[in-house]
Amino acid sequence: MSVPTLVAPDLLEALLENALRAAGACAASAGAAVRAMMHASRIGVDSHGARLVVHYDKVLRGGRVKGTPDIAVRRTAAATAVVDGDDALGHHAAYVAMDTAIELARESGIGAVGVVRSSHFGAAGAYARVAAEAGMIGFATTNSDKVVAPFQGREAFHGTNPLAFAAPSGEARPWLLDMATSSIPLNRLLLFKSLGVSLPQGVAVDEAGRPTTEPSEGRTLLPLGGVDFSFKGAALAGVATLFSAILQGTTLDHAFIPMVGGDDYSTPRRMGHFLLAIDPDRFGGRDVFAAGMAAYLTALRAAPAQEGAEVLAPGDREWRVEAERERTGIPIDPDTAAFLGLPRDPAVPAGNTEGNLVA
Amino acid sequence: MSVPTLVAPDLLEALLENALRAAGACAASAGAAVRAMMHASRIGVDSHGARLVVHYDKVLRGGRVKGTPDIAVRRTAAATAVVDGDDALGHHAAYVAMDTAIELARESGIGAVGVVRSSHFGAAGAYARVAAEAGMIGFATTNSDKVVAPFQGREAFHGTNPLAFAAPSGEARPWLLDMATSSIPLNRLLLFKSLGVSLPQGVAVDEAGRPTTEPSEGRTLLPLGGVDFSFKGAALAGVATLFSAILQGTTLDHAFIPMVGGDDYSTPRRMGHFLLAIDPDRFGGRDVFAAGMAAYLTALRAAPAQEGAEVLAPGDREWRVEAERERTGIPIDPDTAAFLGLPRDPAVPAGNTEGNLVA
Repeated sequence: MSVPTLVAPDLLEALLENALRAAGACAASAGAAVRAMMHASRIGVDSHGARLVVHYDKVLRGGRVKGTPDIAVRRTAAATAVVDGDDALGHHAAYVAMDTAIELARESGIGAVGVVRSSHFGAAGAYARVAAEAGMIGFATTNSDKVVAPFQGREAFHGTNPLAFAAPSGEARPWLLDMATSSIPLNRLLLFKSLGVSLPQGVAVDEAGRPTTEPSEGRTLLPLGGVDFSFKGAALAGVATLFSAILQGTTLDHAFIPMVGGDDYSTPRRMGHFLLAIDPDRFGGRDVFAAGMAAYLTALRAAPAQEGAEVLAPGDREWRVEAERERTGIPIDPDTAAFLGLPRDPAVPAGNTEGNLVA
Repeated sequence: MSVPTLVAPDLLEALLENALRAAGACAASAGAAVRAMMHASRIGVDSHGARLVVHYDKVLRGGRVKGTPDIAVRRTAAATAVVDGDDALGHHAAYVAMDTAIELARESGIGAVGVVRSSHFGAAGAYARVAAEAGMIGFATTNSDKVVAPFQGREAFHGTNPLAFAAPSGEARPWLLDMATSSIPLNRLLLFKSLGVSLPQGVAVDEAGRPTTEPSEGRTLLPLGGVDFSFKGAALAGVATLFSAILQGTTLDHAFIPMVGGDDYSTPRRMGHFLLAIDPDRFGGRDVFAAGMAAYLTALRAAPAQEGAEVLAPGDREWRVEAERERTGIPIDPDTAAFLGLPRDPAVPAGNTEGNLVA
């Protein structure tokens, strides 16, 4: 696989901003979406990075997503609020919601904010980290289109439904977990299929629901935990649905019109999210938290590793990628490069960037 | 394996209560511990059920745990509180904390309660379900003794650190997820070893940190996700540590004096927990929640299954066991039966009840 186009982060940011403004997004919506895409692109989660601009362009122009939304925050109690996204780009609604959660937490110790009438918000970690950067523990989740089988099922039922947690680490970058509740994302399955490479064990099932490592037979993703223990991953996918959709009264995973691949890019998908912030000052206190975190991270990174391996804390790998990409630039796949007016490297198949392998 | 002693739930409850009172627990502490043990024993999680009475007897008599604690609730903000467990049986402190979280949530939309100076609290699901039974979403977690390797590590670092979620289902029993963040619990590994039966793939590593299915070589548990994806399970174990220990300023997993197997049963272990309740009325509202939950559960249980299998919602299997055990009685292993003064079936090896296999 050859190297995709490498773009300096600042240039990429400007190009994404211009593209979304041209597609009709207001400054606030475009800014939020670019911020979330750049979060993902910088840390190597290319599936949720710059490449999504092509999709957002399509849904803004199609009318599914409103470029100039009237986002409303309704406080419902001392520690809770509901954000009406008015069919905005989900990033815009989600950043407003996390900012609100942080405010509520500052006042009430914890803040929980639901989002209704929203759309795809990209990487959940983009919002969890905002809480951590404000000195709090953050949690962000959303449900999404069905692509993952339930435990012992044979057809897709849940989305890859991410759970993202972040916490201040006392270092330059927060502790950060942003995980799909499936073992791999759908585009990784598609990549294995297009490359004809064997699938890892326990990540996909065939038409009959049987686990398979044969890429041509893989139909549906398995939840985290693989063949024997994916009742746990499936239930965690349910947690995302519970908080994001059932609690908010928004669309269930299996009931979404397709995000991509359908004909309809004009009907809003009415997606829900859930954002949470917790203030350590209302528990052990920020100093106790900082000391505990330092002790924990030091012990974790010093844990004896397998031969040739290294024990990392959640986020360590991502922040290394960020530092490297700051130097080398962000790899952009050919389709996205063409969309953004960047030089295209014809040797790289669309979407198959190294980042998609890693994400 | 022959059948262990079967005991009627009411009788078992009375025997456990008597045992803990005899060991010095006050009525409130004994009642809380029995309630949590009976939760686990009724639903088939025997690792966290009645058998723990032998251990609690030991720590009450040894002085590690205080039989007559002065548990104090300190409200720290509109939606948060910290419970000082005064080295009580963890169940007592955790039920007080979840009751407090529910009160806070009723008032402020969400309630988050940390617990400090606590001890082993049994099954996390025992507390999450209290919130669900009060019409709320519940979350409960704790950290615990190191028995699980970090991703790419070769020695134990995290506990099996459970995450438990519950939600009102509109049915007789709540939606309930109570999962260790490892694939299997430690006593299942020990059981495979004692039986000489091959381990499932990706649940344990040998001395060098290499994945093994050879029971005699399995030293340490792998996090949920197995060989390739246990960075997710390891990070989820870290979430339990973050909420329960780092946020509260209590003991980190790797720093606990051993729960069992050490010499010291007199020093408090200063364990932390975290309990959360969320009131649907401050989001979409209870009717919207009930409708969403019914639609979700109906669709999930109707999802096409693999041949010969069945798609269940989290908790469905456990509530079936509960119904069955209500009829047949609760199986009690020989050591626990002897401790409780029950007839002992010498054909059953200690601790190896069917429940331990299933848990």
